Amino acid sequence: MREVAVIGVGQSIFGKLPNKGVAELGREAVSAAIADAGVKPKEIQFAYTSRLYDSMVTSQTVLKEVGVTALEMFNVENACAGGSTAVRGVWKDIASGLYDMGLAVGVESMTTSPIAGKLIPPAKDDLEGQLGMTMPTLFALLARRQMEEHGTTLEDFAQVSVKNHHHGCLNPMAQYKKEFTIEEVLNSRMICDPITLLQCCPNTDGAAAVIMCSMDLARRYTTTPIKVAASVLLSGDYTFRQADITSSPLGTQAAKMAYEMAGLGPEDLDVVELHEAFAPEEILRYEDLGLCAPGEGGALLRSGATAVGGKIPVNPSGGLLSLGHPLSASGVRVVAEITLHLRGQAGQRQTPDAKVGLAHMLGGVVAGLEAGACGIHILTR
Amino acid sequence: MREVAVIGVGQSIFGKLPNKGVAELGREAVSAAIADAGVKPKEIQFAYTSRLYDSMVTSQTVLKEVGVTALEMFNVENACAGGSTAVRGVWKDIASGLYDMGLAVGVESMTTSPIAGKLIPPAKDDLEGQLGMTMPTLFALLARRQMEEHGTTLEDFAQVSVKNHHHGCLNPMAQYKKEFTIEEVLNSRMICDPITLLQCCPNTDGAAAVIMCSMDLARRYTTTPIKVAASVLLSGDYTFRQADITSSPLGTQAAKMAYEMAGLGPEDLDVVELHEAFAPEEILRYEDLGLCAPGEGGALLRSGATAVGGKIPVNPSGGLLSLGHPLSASGVRVVAEITLHLRGQAGQRQTPDAKVGLAHMLGGVVAGLEAGACGIHILTR
Repeated sequence: MREVAVIGVGQSIFGKLPNKGVAELGREAVSAAIADAGVKPKEIQFAYTSRLYDSMVTSQTVLKEVGVTALEMFNVENACAGGSTAVRGVWKDIASGLYDMGLAVGVESMTTSPIAGKLIPPAKDDLEGQLGMTMPTLFALLARRQMEEHGTTLEDFAQVSVKNHHHGCLNPMAQYKKEFTIEEVLNSRMICDPITLLQCCPNTDGAAAVIMCSMDLARRYTTTPIKVAASVLLSGDYTFRQADITSSPLGTQAAKMAYEMAGLGPEDLDVVELHEAFAPEEILRYEDLGLCAPGEGGALLRSGATAVGGKIPVNPSGGLLSLGHPLSASGVRVVAEITLHLRGQAGQRQTPDAKVGLAHMLGGVVAGLEAGACGIHILTR
Repeated sequence: MREVAVIGVGQSIFGKLPNKGVAELGREAVSAAIADAGVKPKEIQFAYTSRLYDSMVTSQTVLKEVGVTALEMFNVENACAGGSTAVRGVWKDIASGLYDMGLAVGVESMTTSPIAGKLIPPAKDDLEGQLGMTMPTLFALLARRQMEEHGTTLEDFAQVSVKNHHHGCLNPMAQYKKEFTIEEVLNSRMICDPITLLQCCPNTDGAAAVIMCSMDLARRYTTTPIKVAASVLLSGDYTFRQADITSSPLGTQAAKMAYEMAGLGPEDLDVVELHEAFAPEEILRYEDLGLCAPGEGGALLRSGATAVGGKIPVNPSGGLLSLGHPLSASGVRVVAEITLHLRGQAGQRQTPDAKVGLAHMLGGVVAGLEAGACGIHILTR
């Protein structure tokens, strides 16, 4: 396996953009990544694309119109981890020597998709489904358990939202650029106790793209190739039926594998992007990734370490809560965000002198369906 | 890249099976492939799964229940070529040395899918869509052009259906096991002139699975490993807007690449499985694959060469017309079928002394959406 580098990243603006549609969003992201990489579209030899439905058509429509004539395309679906899966696929096929340059693109039009509002079909045959175990319900139970086990407080959960909405104000691509106070978060509409509206990620239209190539080739295009030091994708049970729901065995294992592959540990990280579909989740992911000991996530948050300007900024992009969460795009987008920080191009939200970053995305956790995936990429400069 | 072998194949019965659902169909196919390979489920290190929607959940539900704890799963979608994409993915990751043993599974429940009957959303923004250019319409125009250009006759088209329905009678897994005469095919309900009902592939529920491993490892499990001599996946324009619609540039290019990769030519083939969603298509695919010269497909069919017992049997399984066409399963299923022939295990439909076979699947060709894919695998013993 040879070294692989990220040489181009791009994303569309994120938001409720029903007039854009999948093809335009995808083109914005891919065009931006091509311009950023300084490659000719025809130099891209293959592509992995991700969308929850109809990704074949998406990919080919998008890529044709920006002049990418990639002949081999893998259209992957992996819930919220679809984008990570696409990045992992491109990494694999370059690392193996099969291809030299490839594109990962994830796109979702949550407002116009034929499956919008139907993403999680009712689990007719399943007790949990019948009981109304939707996503917010599951995360609400998880939040209550965190409070019980670890002494995490309602204010801690709200603080995640306050922090990430602040970060969103620093990101021109974010769906929400608005500051909130802890009180405003706690007093927003109750969705599922204790989770309020401002602790839930929004529905988002958007796309992100990453161009990768062999490290040897990368040096022809850029003086700052970003090395993919680890690429891990795991699938498996990620269920609330486990004994301790306050950690993700799948995510913990993926992190362990990624650190081993990179020859680095959590103490080496300068910046992290991770999956926080609901505010309480971010605190648990700190623990999965080893940013702190189990049960210490709340304290890490309260210390300010994970805010922009802190020791280890988490979700400086604004995260899923404020930047937005176009499902299959997010796993690509986190790799793009980390790349910007390692290059020193993250503008107002820049992590100073960032050398190592981690891009994480979880997918699945559907009521009654024991399925989940975790993708982690560690990038270095 | 190292040599890769097929060591296990399996499929569910094909048909309208709404009570089975995706999970049960998938389990039948995967269990059969595991039993056929003689491997323990836990020896399978990774998987590529294909379904048009919700393949993540499908894959994990299916695989968990048969004891496959594969940690990396790629859920791919590529219209009718989805199964070929899954096989190609498994080939790549073994050939590169990343893994030693993997599983490709394709499954579709056309009668119960949440997108059943909605597979091709109306192309609102497209003239072709507004004009009613559905699949049968497109293939009807193509059939008329064949007649005009090549002198192909209505009886030729009907003969494809007669032949493949005869083959279906020889296959215990087929959806339709019923002989038809040319007159019965021509006199069945007109769908889109000149294509009648018995010239259209049915809606089918079903699944197919293939287990592959490195050739070195294969010899531990079987004395008859089937070598994957070529694996090709191309994506791109496959459109009826091209100057000559009676050939597929994408399919022709894929065939050329596959023959080069295998160091073989069409003259070396003993048996072929290919995509014939509508009867007229089969004749054109003979030409794409070089089984005969352009325009000579009708003559090849009339010679009887492509029937079971002929020189180069095509679709001995019964093909999409009679065995049935669970979209994402078909690309895996054709590889399974060819494997059976090369092992001498194809029962009444066996190709005598088959040494080289080709498994072909096209996907896409959606009205107004210029997208398509072609997957070709050449297998040898």
